[in-house]
Amino acid sequence: MERQQHPEFEKVYVEPKITLVGAGPGDPDLISIKGVKALKTADVVIYDALVDEALLSYAPKEATRVYVGNPSGDENFSQTTVNRLMVDYALNFGHVVRLKGGDLFVFGRGYEELEYAASYSVETEIIPGISSAISVPGLQGIPVTHKGNSDSLWILSATDSNGSFNWEIEEAARSRATVVVLLGFAQLPEIVSIYKKLGKGRLPAAVIQNGSMKNERLAIGVVNTIEEVAEEVSIDNTGPVLLVFGQAVALHKDFSRILNFLEQDLNLY
Amino acid sequence: MERQQHPEFEKVYVEPKITLVGAGPGDPDLISIKGVKALKTADVVIYDALVDEALLSYAPKEATRVYVGNPSGDENFSQTTVNRLMVDYALNFGHVVRLKGGDLFVFGRGYEELEYAASYSVETEIIPGISSAISVPGLQGIPVTHKGNSDSLWILSATDSNGSFNWEIEEAARSRATVVVLLGFAQLPEIVSIYKKLGKGRLPAAVIQNGSMKNERLAIGVVNTIEEVAEEVSIDNTGPVLLVFGQAVALHKDFSRILNFLEQDLNLY
Repeated sequence: MERQQHPEFEKVYVEPKITLVGAGPGDPDLISIKGVKALKTADVVIYDALVDEALLSYAPKEATRVYVGNPSGDENFSQTTVNRLMVDYALNFGHVVRLKGGDLFVFGRGYEELEYAASYSVETEIIPGISSAISVPGLQGIPVTHKGNSDSLWILSATDSNGSFNWEIEEAARSRATVVVLLGFAQLPEIVSIYKKLGKGRLPAAVIQNGSMKNERLAIGVVNTIEEVAEEVSIDNTGPVLLVFGQAVALHKDFSRILNFLEQDLNLY
Repeated sequence: MERQQHPEFEKVYVEPKITLVGAGPGDPDLISIKGVKALKTADVVIYDALVDEALLSYAPKEATRVYVGNPSGDENFSQTTVNRLMVDYALNFGHVVRLKGGDLFVFGRGYEELEYAASYSVETEIIPGISSAISVPGLQGIPVTHKGNSDSLWILSATDSNGSFNWEIEEAARSRATVVVLLGFAQLPEIVSIYKKLGKGRLPAAVIQNGSMKNERLAIGVVNTIEEVAEEVSIDNTGPVLLVFGQAVALHKDFSRILNFLEQDLNLY
């Protein structure tokens, strides 16, 4: 264990440690007990844009709070910057809680942070969170799997590691799996056209913005109509947006009513 | 809202409500704050085999605790029995917390319970849990997705809704997704032979039993060796077992060392 002298006090040593905590989909009460316990012993909390600031109150008053924006979109806080901050604070102040929206490993880049910490021999702990990919549809009453309806779940990001369109989505669209695409609102037209090309225009589909939060918005329909419905309910690209495709969406309590409306009034189905 | 008179007291009415709570993968501290808050107001807790009994202490002392075994495997507590118990207790005692291992909707049959409650007009609330499919590999340092290594995650059950082998697994094995198979230890030989047939004998693979619990066991290797390694570390079918296939497994900190050992000493790779 590497020990560093605290800059301000003589003979005070810190035990550097980084705990990665998944904060869950948005509702601050969806963090785990274990995540709260970690926050209570934090010397520093590093948190990003997807985390509800109410969670910061679990940390001791004297703990340093560091906001790092949206590391995947914000040039001021690149992943490299976050990694460095994390390790610097751990070496100088002790226990760093890295609080991340959703889960750590579903496009959460948690592994990159663990790897970086390990390269400085800083001890790490992993506290998983509730993944948006599963819980956000679930909270809407859309089960990602359901006996006799959907036997598997395929979770994808809209873009691959190079930032280009993730063509695995086409493969997913061919399958019978419930397909959940994270952070893919900008790619919705492209994804819809893939499903249409495969003759799946009538497949149930949903778009959910700000899942589990007060400003949650839901669009529900079929592939052929989902873009119009999303516009109708004013879904935009502020805050996390999640797409769901598959028979599971038809289990939403409003699906039949919405479908009737679409058939009669919009003539889109 | 349906109101029923309490059988023992005159003019005492109960407000029937069922809250479905995902308890997480096993470690009792991985339940959410919201789940704990629900337990604290429970009149009845209905829990199954995958739930740590330590969680029951959050419920009031006078709350009724009802154990329902493993509804998918135990004939004494079929899903129909659980559904009926849940509604009966809600109508007679008020707030029922249905505490389920893992998440509610990843092969958790949560939707069936919601549907049954709705058919009796009993109010329901959904509190998602941390899914084993994501958190159990994650806690082992195996990220289900990782930039430049795996851009998607396919979660499947080993058997379909009829109880026969889920042939979607073959489709999953062809894909580049990280493949997680839940409750599939009995089907491991069949799944391994699918991967071998596809020429993927050297694909990294892991088997994890009792993830996040004290008696956790991990087998790590490649498709060609994983059955032998699982036997070596005495993994068996008691408690939940999860299979992981994909390049993501190679990110486990011991993977290179294990692979060297396999190549040199077992000559299986």
